[in-house]
Amino acid sequence: MSVTTHSNLPHSNLSAEDAAALRAIPLFAKLSDRAVALLGGVAIVRPVTRGTTLFLQDEPADRFFVLLDGWVKLFRLTRDGAEAVVHVIGPAESFAEAAMFADGKFPVCAEAVTDARVMTLTAEGFARCLREDDRIAFGMLGSLSVRLRHLVTQIEQLQVQPAPQRVAAFLLRVCPPGEGGASFQLPFDKALIARRLGMQPETLSRALAKLRAAGVDTQGLTVTVADRAALRELAEAADDE
Amino acid sequence: MSVTTHSNLPHSNLSAEDAAALRAIPLFAKLSDRAVALLGGVAIVRPVTRGTTLFLQDEPADRFFVLLDGWVKLFRLTRDGAEAVVHVIGPAESFAEAAMFADGKFPVCAEAVTDARVMTLTAEGFARCLREDDRIAFGMLGSLSVRLRHLVTQIEQLQVQPAPQRVAAFLLRVCPPGEGGASFQLPFDKALIARRLGMQPETLSRALAKLRAAGVDTQGLTVTVADRAALRELAEAADDE
Repeated sequence: MSVTTHSNLPHSNLSAEDAAALRAIPLFAKLSDRAVALLGGVAIVRPVTRGTTLFLQDEPADRFFVLLDGWVKLFRLTRDGAEAVVHVIGPAESFAEAAMFADGKFPVCAEAVTDARVMTLTAEGFARCLREDDRIAFGMLGSLSVRLRHLVTQIEQLQVQPAPQRVAAFLLRVCPPGEGGASFQLPFDKALIARRLGMQPETLSRALAKLRAAGVDTQGLTVTVADRAALRELAEAADDE
Repeated sequence: MSVTTHSNLPHSNLSAEDAAALRAIPLFAKLSDRAVALLGGVAIVRPVTRGTTLFLQDEPADRFFVLLDGWVKLFRLTRDGAEAVVHVIGPAESFAEAAMFADGKFPVCAEAVTDARVMTLTAEGFARCLREDDRIAFGMLGSLSVRLRHLVTQIEQLQVQPAPQRVAAFLLRVCPPGEGGASFQLPFDKALIARRLGMQPETLSRALAKLRAAGVDTQGLTVTVADRAALRELAEAADDE
């Protein structure tokens, strides 16, 4: 059946409102109108009533979902048959895409806890769109990469470890592999090292001075470590905090 | 020129060691041997000496990089021509992929601060690989999605806001839009709301009790809000912290 449209965009199953909801998902934020229409052509939108099971744990993850409206719980079944709710998905959130992209199984069950409207995208339909338009993969990889960078920065800011620990971890990274003592050159100047570690140069100097107690001696760019194990212990202690 | 290989994998420009380095990058962690070989066929590996400029700010981002060895600084030029170092990239890290996928310009300059070995992947070569093998896009989207989920969870755990703030934000999300007072039903039971908000049911009860001071009254699943603005203020105060 041929469909007459007023534009040269592919035929989409989505209303303008649902297309906007798709684009509100970070994964799809960067897609062109044409890409959204292509995805809309393979998407299935359906209303489900409260209590509807969307998928079961361990089923092949051959599709993923965008919740347009309503709430869906994700849960595991424990050995004794009880439900352990892992997450509750709200309006304008996607779910199960990680399982689908990884070509795996659904790690949880999904059940609507209210009446809901659900958009389903199958792996097969999705792959067809990717083949149709190169820019879809680029757009999605772009959105995810940008988001990842922001989150990594945010975590670094939230998780600020004491300067001596951060310097210890850096020294271990540039230290030649092996056990026991070592002497090596810093790969570049201290101002840049401070920048890499997100600290002021004075903070780096103070941290290096404190590391002397752990057997680390610094003369210019030459570092002498009495025992890598002591340095490792110091660096790893921070990870546990 | 035809290349004789001992397997049916595509011809790759990468040594086994460089291929392993590629796979150590989270973006490429899930790729098949064939996909890595395909990317290896379009990748260019070259040694660069200290001080080499890899790209300039505002150039079209038509390629991205994996640093196999050495260190590279990313910096902006300030108005008065000074360098503001944004990041220092180390061995086995990728950079500029977000700019390339977003089809934009390099937001910074990149210069090797030590002798280095750099793998370059052009947008064009990369797109050719994606067309050749569907699973590459899926694998990369899978890796990024999984990583994103972990980071979001990690941030939620690091950034734990006081329970009343989190409950206020949730109530605003399920409250009908508008200004002033409102009365509405919670979309699902309190045990599940507590799960969504990552708190114990008792903590949710205590938080709801505390919200009474902000004009929020809860009877069973019915919530009455005296003034949405007061609730919004409470929820947003947490965001600023």
